[in-house]
This record gives sequence, structure tokens and C-alpha cells, in this order.
Amino acid sequence: MRATDLIRRKRDGGVLSSDDITTFLRGVTDGSIADYQASAMAMAIFFRGMSQDETVAWTMAMRDSGTVMVWDDLDGIPVDKHSTGGVGDKVSLILAPLVAAAGVPVPMISGRGLGHTGGTLDKLESIPGFRTDLSVARFRELVRTLGCGLIGQTAEIAPADKKLYALRDVTATVECIPLIVSSILSKKLAEGIDGLVLDVKWGSGAFMRTLEDAEQLAEALVQVGTGAGKQVVARLTDMNQPLGRMVGNALEVAESLDVLEGGGPADLREMTLELGAEMLVLGGVATALDEARARLGRLLDSGAARERFGQIIEAQHGDPRVLDDRSLLPTAPVRVPVLAESPGVLSGMDCAEVGRAASELGAGRARAEDVIDPAVGLEMHVRVGDAVAVGQPLATLHCVGGAASDAAVARFRSALRWSSSPTAPLPLFGRRISA
Amino acid sequence: MRATDLIRRKRDGGVLSSDDITTFLRGVTDGSIADYQASAMAMAIFFRGMSQDETVAWTMAMRDSGTVMVWDDLDGIPVDKHSTGGVGDKVSLILAPLVAAAGVPVPMISGRGLGHTGGTLDKLESIPGFRTDLSVARFRELVRTLGCGLIGQTAEIAPADKKLYALRDVTATVECIPLIVSSILSKKLAEGIDGLVLDVKWGSGAFMRTLEDAEQLAEALVQVGTGAGKQVVARLTDMNQPLGRMVGNALEVAESLDVLEGGGPADLREMTLELGAEMLVLGGVATALDEARARLGRLLDSGAARERFGQIIEAQHGDPRVLDDRSLLPTAPVRVPVLAESPGVLSGMDCAEVGRAASELGAGRARAEDVIDPAVGLEMHVRVGDAVAVGQPLATLHCVGGAASDAAVARFRSALRWSSSPTAPLPLFGRRISA
Repeated sequence: MRATDLIRRKRDGGVLSSDDITTFLRGVTDGSIADYQASAMAMAIFFRGMSQDETVAWTMAMRDSGTVMVWDDLDGIPVDKHSTGGVGDKVSLILAPLVAAAGVPVPMISGRGLGHTGGTLDKLESIPGFRTDLSVARFRELVRTLGCGLIGQTAEIAPADKKLYALRDVTATVECIPLIVSSILSKKLAEGIDGLVLDVKWGSGAFMRTLEDAEQLAEALVQVGTGAGKQVVARLTDMNQPLGRMVGNALEVAESLDVLEGGGPADLREMTLELGAEMLVLGGVATALDEARARLGRLLDSGAARERFGQIIEAQHGDPRVLDDRSLLPTAPVRVPVLAESPGVLSGMDCAEVGRAASELGAGRARAEDVIDPAVGLEMHVRVGDAVAVGQPLATLHCVGGAASDAAVARFRSALRWSSSPTAPLPLFGRRISA
Repeated sequence: MRATDLIRRKRDGGVLSSDDITTFLRGVTDGSIADYQASAMAMAIFFRGMSQDETVAWTMAMRDSGTVMVWDDLDGIPVDKHSTGGVGDKVSLILAPLVAAAGVPVPMISGRGLGHTGGTLDKLESIPGFRTDLSVARFRELVRTLGCGLIGQTAEIAPADKKLYALRDVTATVECIPLIVSSILSKKLAEGIDGLVLDVKWGSGAFMRTLEDAEQLAEALVQVGTGAGKQVVARLTDMNQPLGRMVGNALEVAESLDVLEGGGPADLREMTLELGAEMLVLGGVATALDEARARLGRLLDSGAARERFGQIIEAQHGDPRVLDDRSLLPTAPVRVPVLAESPGVLSGMDCAEVGRAASELGAGRARAEDVIDPAVGLEMHVRVGDAVAVGQPLATLHCVGGAASDAAVARFRSALRWSSSPTAPLPLFGRRISA
């Protein structure tokens, strides 16, 4: 009856106390509150929302449903970055070793790709031997010794969120700011970090399609994260086209290595430096963003970050020789060029469709149980604002050929929007939001 | 995915087609749609409502989730009555044999009591030997031969409603007009009736506390019932005090026998005649309500309805000698009078609390699994508007004594509202609503 009363209170626009929320989520975790009650509550929250206090309490209760890491033996202030997900977003792969090399510990717990978005774990696992299923003890050791570990969400981390997210996914209760905020933050807070940089993306390839929605989410994340006692900064970033050039797991690892060698696409390097600079300031090793950016640039250009990545790969059972020999990464057997059929200016794209084209090749998952092919993907040769001539390459598909690649080509082509007049390049960043 | 899409459409204020609703409720019935999806849909409907067309489709789909009776072998048009439930409402016990005796078949499927309200099945089962768990074949035979059968909801009747109602009960999605309407009507339509009289109660002892809410429910019931192709009439009736004098199972059977003998409390007789007259008109054996009322009055006064009740009792394995010997009904060992402690006029009461006082004695259930005592209950000696002197009996508790009866006395006393100035008696009826 208690659960029903709490659902009714929220349904009728009432406020849940911190105790109510703790009771409810404890019940969800231990099964004494049924899934059908959890989903009814989620739908009531969808309609009624939650206040900032409620969302903080909901976040803390989900965090406390499992193990919360404590880092009092660390030399440094642990900081992490979270992105709301997009197409070609491989920033974490570069950022984790880079920020660790700058002296800020990064205990990073990442996810897998689903739908049109990729996942850090999938990308890392395209490195031969790389394992993301380390024990918590081993993860702690890596963060302590190398300043960084890269693992997946375990059953011990925020199990209430795991259960609730699975339910929300099949009950049409995903698109709800307080539930999104608490889901993101509960997992990150369980990492025991003191600072968090949020990369909140907007656009056709993002979870939030409009800048306004993304700003609303970013503001809520900063407010609730701050309410939960953390240092939180959010950056709004564009996801109307893939970040960098590569979409696909091993392809994105290769592109990340390019940046770690001081090269790579400008947008990807800039995004990494920008988010990394925020982490350095939160981690207390820099006082100004300019200074932090410059320092991180030097760590990329000197190879120090690349070296740290090699150590992490080795510590996580991967083959560190990929740093020097890219051919050790999985490679697709077929390359299919996609050429411009008429002249024009690329004025925009349905970026999620570009992601789905890569998924269709095998780079991503339509459903959680799908198996991915680490080698395949899509290499972009154009960005919004570029003028192209007939026959100019728009992209190269790295694939196994056949019907799947034909379908992916068609999907990719139909995702692009063309204009006959000049179009300005897209900005990389929107507002910066902090407490 | 289909279920999630349908939930999302309703959540976002869209309209579900008849096919959508059939698909969804078929899935709920066969388990291919999970309970947590059904409860999320119920909560979305709570917030978004359903159009009349949607509610009709929802009702039909729930009806068609199980057996739908067909009465083409009947001599007469089958009609039933449904009440939204109250305290002391024993009308069905009198009405079923009375209307059957007037030539209108009544295939009545009833429920059990819960909370402050009683249930027809519980009342009938206080008659020694009476069984309400007849097979559908035997039920059909009784309706054909005696014009009436009185059974409980079986697993074959509207299983989608059974499942959904159990879910709504624990997910705070009961209080939702389209879901209430479809729950009531799906079961009644599965009886295969052509006409339905709805007794929609308002007041402190009713499901709908205000007249306005009850009118809204009655209008929706009539619209949707008519949309489903039935002849439907609703009467708004007062439930701000118990109907008749008795609250408790065997006590209510005895009071019903009083009415079947031409006596009994005036309000109970009047209510029975009023609802019965509507049934006679819907059943096509009378053209005017006045004429029908007079005819039913004669059937009570002549003993014809009482005789029919005796035949039904016998056919349903009960002991028909209770008609002549009330001592065969269960009797409580102790009678506790509740006397007025000061003079005053009874100006009102929390009628649900009066029902809960009877429940506390053992007459009702706080939870579905509670066992009831058929003998116990509460006999009212005052009605709203009555002036009482000190020491005048307000009620008599029929009970087993002890702490439970002390608590029931206290609860009963605190439920009554007193005034020093005259108060008008309560009206018995509100509006009559028909298509």
C-alpha cells in the first residue's frame, strides 16, 4: 500500500519527501516494489515532473542503491566527463588518458552504443584484447596508479537505475528531464568523483534535438549535481553532424590515436581540449581554462597522453602495439566510396540517420542484444558548409559489402541536405552552464 | 516495441484506434504485454483520458477478452442492474427475483465487498448453503428457467478487466473515469444483456464523493454503454447514509426478506421499485415507469417476488427455509446498543466510516484476503434529519463483543455529525440520465 500511496501522491501533483523516495527506490531495487508500480510512478513523474529537491533525493537514492566508490587514497581530485551521446563522439578515449596525464584522476564508467549512438566500451573493445569488465578492485588500482581506468557499469553500480532504465525503455517514460538527470548523475556520483563535466549535445544526432531542450537538460543536470554536493559544469555542444570524421568502433580508435599524436580533425581536438580544460579546473590542477587548454595541447603534442593511453591499454589486457601499428586494429574488407551525384553545398543532415547508416553496416546495435562488427563504419569527407563538385567523395563506407552496404549508402545519401547557396559552418559549442 | 509505441502515443495525447486497443488488451490478456506496460498505459490514460470512441473500443476489447454470453434461447430481453457500491446496499437481492418475477430475465454477475462497501456475493453466501460459484451452464439454466441467476465473476468473464483492475488497484490508477467506465461495462456486456440500469451513487459512502463526479461518471457510462449498442439508463442515488437500516451480510438478507414480504424500510423499497421499473421498461414488459413501479409493488406485496427468491435460493444450493425461519441465518452472539449522549439533530455522517465500523466488526474486508463474519453488522436507528434525545438508541451493533466492538462503537460515533437546528432529510435520488 505504501508504494501505491506514493504513486498517488506524485500522480496528484504532491511532493515526495527524501524518505519517500529512498523507500520507493529501495523497494524497486530489492523487488518489494513491483515493476508495474515502478513504471506507473515513472509515468506519473513524466506528467508531474519532480522539483529540484526531489530530483536530488531521487539521484542520491539511486546512487546509494549500490556501491559508491570512495577515493580517499588518491593523489588528486577525481573528475569525470559525461556526454549525452552522439555520432562519432570518441572524446572519452582521448580525454581519459589526457586528463590523467595532466594529474587529474579519471575513474570513468562508460556505456555501450544503442540505436544511432556509439558507446565508449564498444570502441575500446575494438582494440585487440581490451577488457572493460575489470573488477572494482582492479579498477581502483588503475585509477590510483595510472590516474585512469575505463570500465562498464557493473551490477554493483546504481542497480536501481539499471532496473528503472530498462523499465522506462519499454514503457515510454524515457523522455523526462528529472528521470534523465537522475539516471545520468546517479551513475556518475557512484564513481565517487568530486567534479563532473557534462557534454550536453543538441541537434539531429543528439538525444535532445533542439538547443532549447539541451539547455534545459544541462541546467537541470548542473542544478541537481550541485544540489548533490558536486562541482558540475555543462557545455552545450553541437551534434548536427558527426564529431570528427570517423563513425565506427575501430575507425574511431584510429582517429583518437591521431589526436593523441597531435593530429586528427580540428573539431575533435578542440572539443577534447575544451572539455579537458574544464576537468583540469574542477580537478584543481589549473585555475584558468586558457592555461588548462594550453597545457593539454602540449600533452597531446608531446606524446605524453598517447603514452598514458598505451599504459592503460596494456593494464586493461589490450595490445598496446596498436599505437605503432594501426593494422592490428580490425579492418573491414571492403571500402565503398559514396560520391556526389550533383554539385551543391552541404547545408545540413539528419545526423541520427548517418549514425543508423553506420549501425546498418554492423557498427551499432538496433537492439541491446545485437552483436556489432568492430571493423565497419563510415568515414565522412564533408562537413556542413562544404561545397562539393560532381564525383567528389562524400564518404567512404568500411564494410563487408553486399545488400547491407547498399542500404547504408542509400540511407546515408538520403540523410544529407543540399543547398545551392553558401551555408555557414556549424558552431561547435553553445553555452557554458555552471552553478 | 508495439506496446511501447502505443503507450507513447497515449502519453503524448494521441488517439488510439480500435485496432490499437484490441492489440494492446489482447497482449495484456495473453501476457505478451507486460504488467509494467499495462500500468504505464493506465497512468498515461489517467492523465490524457480517452475519447468516447476509445472508451467504447476499450470496453469492447475487455468484454471480448473472455466469454461473452449469448441468450438467444431466452423468452425475454435480458437486463441487469449495476451499482457503483455503497453501505447497506442490498437492492440486488430484492431486485433480481422481483424483476425476474415480472418477466424480465436477469443474468446477474456480482462482486464481493471491499473496504467500506459490501458485496452481493457475500450477502447471498450468508444464507446457509448458498453457492455463487455455479458453472456457466448451470447459470444459463437458472436464467432460462427461473429468470434469474446470481453468480460471481468467473475467470472466463472479461479476464483483461480482472488483470487490469488488480494492477490499477496497486498503481494508483483506479480513479479514472474512462477506465472505471470500461471496467464496469465490460463485465456487464459480457453477460450478454440488452439493457442495463446503472445505480450511480454519490456521497460520503460512495466511490464518487460529490454529486458532480457521480453525474460525470453516470454520463460517461450511459454514453459508452449506448456507444456499445446497449440500452442504458443511469440513476443518481444518494449514499450519504446507509440504504435501509442494516449493514452486515445476514442482517441485510433479513432486511431484504422484509421488503420481499411487502415491508422493510421505505427508502429501500422505493429504491428497489425505482430501479426495477427502469429494468421493466428496458426489458420491454412495461412502457411507462409509473405502471412498472405499481406492478413491481404488487409483486412484492403479493409474495410473488419472495417466492421467486425462494426458488433461486434452492436452485443455488441454499436453504429456502430462511424465508420462514430467520433464525436459520447466522446470528451474532452479542448486541451492543449505541445511545445518544446528548440531544441533537443528526445533520450528516461520514457514511464510509459507518461502513468501516461494520467492517471492523467483521462484516467486511480491509483487504481482499480477509475472512468475513456473515452474522455481524450494524443496525441503524436514526437517519439524517432525525432529532434524538439523550439515551435514545442510535444503532445496535450485532457482534462478538470485546475490543473490536469498542473500536467500532467509537468509529461509528465519530462518523456522525450533529446540529442543534433542524436538518432536512436527504433526497434519495438525483438526476436520471439516458441516451
